[in-house]
Amino acid sequence: MTALEQLIEALKRLPGVGQKSAQRMAYHLLQHERQAMGQLAAALTAAGEQIGHCQRCHTFSETALCAICADAARDARLLCVVETPADQAVLERTGSYRGYYFVLLGRVSPLDGVGAREIGAAQLLQRAADGGVEEVILATSFTAEGEATAHVLGDALRARGIKATRLARGVPVGSELEYVDLGTIAHALSDRR
Amino acid sequence: MTALEQLIEALKRLPGVGQKSAQRMAYHLLQHERQAMGQLAAALTAAGEQIGHCQRCHTFSETALCAICADAARDARLLCVVETPADQAVLERTGSYRGYYFVLLGRVSPLDGVGAREIGAAQLLQRAADGGVEEVILATSFTAEGEATAHVLGDALRARGIKATRLARGVPVGSELEYVDLGTIAHALSDRR
Ligand SMILES: [Zn+2]
Ligand SMILES: [Zn+2]
Repeated sequence: MTALEQLIEALKRLPGVGQKSAQRMAYHLLQHERQAMGQLAAALTAAGEQIGHCQRCHTFSETALCAICADAARDARLLCVVETPADQAVLERTGSYRGYYFVLLGRVSPLDGVGAREIGAAQLLQRAADGGVEEVILATSFTAEGEATAHVLGDALRARGIKATRLARGVPVGSELEYVDLGTIAHALSDRR
Repeated sequence: MTALEQLIEALKRLPGVGQKSAQRMAYHLLQHERQAMGQLAAALTAAGEQIGHCQRCHTFSETALCAICADAARDARLLCVVETPADQAVLERTGSYRGYYFVLLGRVSPLDGVGAREIGAAQLLQRAADGGVEEVILATSFTAEGEATAHVLGDALRARGIKATRLARGVPVGSELEYVDLGTIAHALSDRR
């Protein structure tokens, strides 16, 4: 394989990128973005070497504990479960939540063979049983898969005697949490059930 | 910026990739494709260091002359102008063409400020005046931009007394050359006008 063919093959490993997109990306980078190629290579290498998972909340972190888990000033009685770091960032920006998080980095998807095990349910149950947690707020997306995830995790938590709530339905059904306006999310947080 | 933020910013430099796609790509790579991250980094670095342009046809090449331009057995009377290496590969696979190529690596797009100069028209005119070329076949896509490109280049070539033809209209209008079946392309080649 030539260097160009190898680049196209490597780009095809990105999610949602097929042969045609990978070719277009490779030609664009080579023709117009030589500097960006080096930056992307360096960012990939650095990310691969430096980014692991937070021991407590499972989110991507360059340190054993992420900045939020390392912040002792937060409310240890609340644990909020989100799908992605982007969803977590949106909740942080509402300024309405001061508890801790657990970041699934995925959601239940039976058709793809992604079950409770694959999204770290055992790790969540362990974290929720960690002294002090009084309520787990399930803030997964209000999509079919997000709802299924909340359902599975809620059942597992309640079976262990842990209180599990869901964001109120103020969040528009069918939407990705990340795109919901902050006021709606703040309202949904206070109305959790 | 954290390593994760830097990775997301770098991925946003890929064409067609916005904030949301870049996040999704970064999470996916970190969660499921650690090996692919290293391969992509290496492929980007190698491509940046090794891939330049062929001196004669302008396509991406790791050598001063690409394999086709270096092949003295081809028909030097024919020069075929294509938009991308992918289009060139399709023409090669028809087995119907034995001349040389000029690869624009782009197409005229007035709305984006991409004119004849930006797609290397001067270099093409110089190559076409290179002793021996009797006909330039304009095999740009049959899209609005590809037609505009063929029009601009055809006028410039004819103004210099160089015969310029266009692939026959056997190629379905509005389609990208790369997706057209080989038989249609072979037919369009023989019917060029
Ligand atoms: Zn953490
Ligand atoms: Zn060449």
